[in-house]
Amino acid sequence: MVDVLPTIVSVPGFKVAGVHCGLKKNGALDFALVFSDAPCTAAGVFTTNRVQAAPVLVDMERLKATPDRIRAVAINAGCANACTGQQGIDNALQTARWVAEYTGCGEDEVLVMSTGVIGTQLPMDKIKRGVELAAGALGENHWEAAARAIMTTDTRPKMASAALTAANGQPYQIAGIAKGAGMIAPNMATMLGLVVTNARFPAPLQPLLHAAAEQSFNRIVVDGDMSTNDTVLLLSNGQSGALETPVGQYPDAVRAVSRKLALDIVRDGEGATKFISILVTGAPDEAAARLIANTIATSSLVKTAFFGSDANWGRIVAAAGRSGVPVNPDQLRLWLFPGETTTGTEGGLLLFENGMPTAYREEQAGDIMRLPSVSIRLDCGAGDGAALVWTCDLSAEYVAINADYRS
Amino acid sequence: MVDVLPTIVSVPGFKVAGVHCGLKKNGALDFALVFSDAPCTAAGVFTTNRVQAAPVLVDMERLKATPDRIRAVAINAGCANACTGQQGIDNALQTARWVAEYTGCGEDEVLVMSTGVIGTQLPMDKIKRGVELAAGALGENHWEAAARAIMTTDTRPKMASAALTAANGQPYQIAGIAKGAGMIAPNMATMLGLVVTNARFPAPLQPLLHAAAEQSFNRIVVDGDMSTNDTVLLLSNGQSGALETPVGQYPDAVRAVSRKLALDIVRDGEGATKFISILVTGAPDEAAARLIANTIATSSLVKTAFFGSDANWGRIVAAAGRSGVPVNPDQLRLWLFPGETTTGTEGGLLLFENGMPTAYREEQAGDIMRLPSVSIRLDCGAGDGAALVWTCDLSAEYVAINADYRS
Repeated sequence: MVDVLPTIVSVPGFKVAGVHCGLKKNGALDFALVFSDAPCTAAGVFTTNRVQAAPVLVDMERLKATPDRIRAVAINAGCANACTGQQGIDNALQTARWVAEYTGCGEDEVLVMSTGVIGTQLPMDKIKRGVELAAGALGENHWEAAARAIMTTDTRPKMASAALTAANGQPYQIAGIAKGAGMIAPNMATMLGLVVTNARFPAPLQPLLHAAAEQSFNRIVVDGDMSTNDTVLLLSNGQSGALETPVGQYPDAVRAVSRKLALDIVRDGEGATKFISILVTGAPDEAAARLIANTIATSSLVKTAFFGSDANWGRIVAAAGRSGVPVNPDQLRLWLFPGETTTGTEGGLLLFENGMPTAYREEQAGDIMRLPSVSIRLDCGAGDGAALVWTCDLSAEYVAINADYRS
Repeated sequence: MVDVLPTIVSVPGFKVAGVHCGLKKNGALDFALVFSDAPCTAAGVFTTNRVQAAPVLVDMERLKATPDRIRAVAINAGCANACTGQQGIDNALQTARWVAEYTGCGEDEVLVMSTGVIGTQLPMDKIKRGVELAAGALGENHWEAAARAIMTTDTRPKMASAALTAANGQPYQIAGIAKGAGMIAPNMATMLGLVVTNARFPAPLQPLLHAAAEQSFNRIVVDGDMSTNDTVLLLSNGQSGALETPVGQYPDAVRAVSRKLALDIVRDGEGATKFISILVTGAPDEAAARLIANTIATSSLVKTAFFGSDANWGRIVAAAGRSGVPVNPDQLRLWLFPGETTTGTEGGLLLFENGMPTAYREEQAGDIMRLPSVSIRLDCGAGDGAALVWTCDLSAEYVAINADYRS
């Protein structure tokens, strides 16, 4: 197990900055730059939305062409650069060109990410100023500024890091930042995330990042919507001298940092008042378990019941029933747990079995539902398939945030 | 075209009642009974949820066994009789038995429907009193009372009727009532609905009702959840002497009444402030068009933007992009219309084409978005598939209603 810290001190070999260049109206940080002292091996996981933002298209191409010499990642908030046509592509490329100019790397060694409103062009005068300011502010200890600069409706920055020792005895660091809050759906990376490490890993990073995302960013649901910009990048530059092996802690560390960031996103879900863990067991297979868990996690009726601290288990059972998996209601068993208990039945309150509610006391269920962290386990009694998904409740605040987002 | 009235005067050959038997706390009507003077040919369309309420199971069996001699339908609000095990089945059967006793028909000639909270047993003393009171109150002109008695979070009763003349020259009536407001998803009947007529139709009713539901109840979305109880029944008793032909107005009338009821459900969606028509055209086929339309209609981000009267078309395009249909963003065109315009482009404001927003004026879009009825058309430029779906916005009031539903 890898111990993950909720902050980032530094990852020697990487410099970062978070600055304000006028993209956010309120003077908050809105442009981040991460720069590596040496070429990085890099990997990316991107939105599966058919409508992909310009920075997604640019990064996918660059990671295909030059995955072994990425030097910088520039991230702006305030504008998603999505649905912006050829001009959007040109603007993403120009952003990278400026980064190359101001930092002295090659322009095809720069990746870009954008987040914010869809359908407006990047204000390039502000972007240029952002690149200039950020290049001048690069330092090893500015991770929090960078994490703040990529926030949109997030209420707090999301960071994670870990310090490890490689197979060759050298210490190294791994760190990540992320943004998210709404438009968080259960399939594929559903936000912006960047994970960097100064270790070197002797195998392709793409499958490793994909596996980590499968266990983290792809297991969270806020509202079921999927963005045009979702991207997670992994950069590995080997500057610590640490050389890992495929069986070392490196894959675990990437997964653990990704998971911490993913859970932070759910905890900071738009308007969220509750953190909810949904474990489905006993399904025909893992895909079926995941489908059931995601159907429960995206149900507006389930989410509003959690907001109301109402143990309305009927909505959970009904969501499982419409998931498309042929569940047998007489075989279902549903438990409610306080906190983040994710396996077993101990400490759980059995609400439903044999096609009927148990004789549980409604007050006891209510006491659990009022906690800020609640778990459910639904066992389908039909196999060994299991899946764990994290979500949050649906509050009136979510509606207010999203009704007024562009104003 | 069949002219549909928003009220029901009477359908000679049918008697109805709506009474209060104590299932609703506030003294409101909560038990409805519809009784036919003669055996009816009947058909039913039911929820595709794997978790089916006791009345659904009972009705499916009866319609299979005796579809040509149904006499009565009893409907209670306040308790869904879902997730209630064998006792729930026994209670549904007992309800039918009491109806048979008090009205003098056979118990297997009675259908039952329930709506309300999942997972509690029917309070049978109240149900018995409901049957007794309703049987004593049966009359030709009590349709509004019946429509009111089946309401749950509905704010108003839903009724529709039409007067027609059959192929043999005889006049006849068709009438329907429905309830619904939340848990309205795009697949299968998603509420309770009952349509009756005193005409006789010389062909099986099941495919006819199914086709009508496909064009009405299966085209509406409130929140994407699907209930355990959804049922639409059609009863045809021929008491008017009207004999229709398969090519007469009868199928149109069933569809028109169903559509009026379905649209009433959307208009009265929980917390809804806007009626939204979503037309998708130019999709590879009709199924693809429907999938895109339903994805847009169930998107929390799209629905909250409508609530905020924000023409945030990027969310609509993004929803289409994640629908699973391989849309090409450069081929998409999106129009916004005032009111219920459902085809063509005239009067529409083109917001998006060629992968980018048009030069539309934001104020003009805002003026349309602030109307109580708004339409969008998304053309995919990829075929002849088209689908029309109706939905409503997602408001803070929806959250409040569903957070507190059981308290």
